Amino acid sequence: MPTPALTFFPLADLPLIEPGNDLAALLIEHLGKAGLIPQNDDVLVIAQKIVSKAEDCFVDLQDIKPSPEALKLAYSSEKDPRLAELILRESARIVRDTPKVLIVEHRLGIVLANAGIDRSNVNNDEDTVLLLPVDPDASARRLKATLDAHFGVRLGIVITDSVGRPWRLGTTGIAIGCAGLAAMHDMRGLSDMFGRVLQVAEVATADCVAGAATLLMGEGAEAIPVVLMRGLQAGKPEQSAQTIVRSANENLFE
Amino acid sequence: MPTPALTFFPLADLPLIEPGNDLAALLIEHLGKAGLIPQNDDVLVIAQKIVSKAEDCFVDLQDIKPSPEALKLAYSSEKDPRLAELILRESARIVRDTPKVLIVEHRLGIVLANAGIDRSNVNNDEDTVLLLPVDPDASARRLKATLDAHFGVRLGIVITDSVGRPWRLGTTGIAIGCAGLAAMHDMRGLSDMFGRVLQVAEVATADCVAGAATLLMGEGAEAIPVVLMRGLQAGKPEQSAQTIVRSANENLFE
Repeated sequence: MPTPALTFFPLADLPLIEPGNDLAALLIEHLGKAGLIPQNDDVLVIAQKIVSKAEDCFVDLQDIKPSPEALKLAYSSEKDPRLAELILRESARIVRDTPKVLIVEHRLGIVLANAGIDRSNVNNDEDTVLLLPVDPDASARRLKATLDAHFGVRLGIVITDSVGRPWRLGTTGIAIGCAGLAAMHDMRGLSDMFGRVLQVAEVATADCVAGAATLLMGEGAEAIPVVLMRGLQAGKPEQSAQTIVRSANENLFE
Repeated sequence: MPTPALTFFPLADLPLIEPGNDLAALLIEHLGKAGLIPQNDDVLVIAQKIVSKAEDCFVDLQDIKPSPEALKLAYSSEKDPRLAELILRESARIVRDTPKVLIVEHRLGIVLANAGIDRSNVNNDEDTVLLLPVDPDASARRLKATLDAHFGVRLGIVITDSVGRPWRLGTTGIAIGCAGLAAMHDMRGLSDMFGRVLQVAEVATADCVAGAATLLMGEGAEAIPVVLMRGLQAGKPEQSAQTIVRSANENLFE
């Protein structure tokens, strides 16, 4: 077989992450133990859940007092009123509110169920939930700075979450935080093989990376929360995951 | 470095595909030339465009007479009336119709711009357009049957197209035809690491495969129209790409 163009290495043996853990130090330690020595332009794909845990984005629902608006939303969406309150705090707008299904535009611009607040796999406590990182792009930049300095390379970092989609069943990964790579590969203005200029040709590279890593991470993303990807052309300029967010007034589909 | 869990091999040297070409025979020939010998559970990811070309899904717009409905749609969407007529013929419903942006639900259930009808890279003739394959799942099954028999293995086949998304900029790949793999990896009913049963845990595996291949294919998908992927757990049961289509009445987002 020839050399593959893209390869994905799972990092399976990371310990369960606890609040206050130094995630960059743990990654350095366990990449080393696994013999995964990062090279220039490697992309480290990291599940949101472990970033949130390390950054202590836990909330105890017993500390949350629902507002009147949250009580109303809890009723219509059949959710715990304290969870509804947290969802409202994390959201810019409600996209869809029906019994059992509550889809919002998160303050980060991501449209997803329950503002990405996670009750599964958090710990054994039913009242503890986990929010998305406060600023996943900043988290990615911090991880990159530490890992780049340690390994003496220029890495890409993609922090992923799993989301549903309007017209497709099942979840796929998207990039909620990025550093060190072009999140979108802009091919507009390039001509195709017959000289016609391509009009719509931006690939959401970081989302494709996240989707690919989901094949190894699975939906839970706890057993394999980190995947090292080798072979991507990182591209320029370096862009945040916010680059991929389509603002509500740019929405061509609704 | 340890052995990677997933690897992607581009097949770059395929000739330009012409109507009537035996795509399975060309794939067998050029996989062999490239030294890419498929193994059990390898997935061959194939860009829609070359399937459509081999199946002669070309239409000469000079042969198309627009209906009154098409003339109206051409006016509102600022499109060639003959193209509007073809888009209507290929579509189950119009999702969004504004100047320059025409998004439909294709008869295959896929929601995308211009019913996936392609004018770029088709050939030098401005009046020739290329439709999606008539039945991409059937195309995938036929290719699988021939390739499996030739190589003596059980392959997965994913036929991909690039689509936009409502809340995300840039395109990503989705699976429009599948054979030989579980298009969705159903994890519902499995318990997470703390014994809580996962409620929403279906990964759209075939879409993640398509997104990953897009990283090599790019938006045009003509220079590298075929990618061999190794390492995916094919899963059961074997499912068509139709499995991933969320029907309009299941749409949780609109």
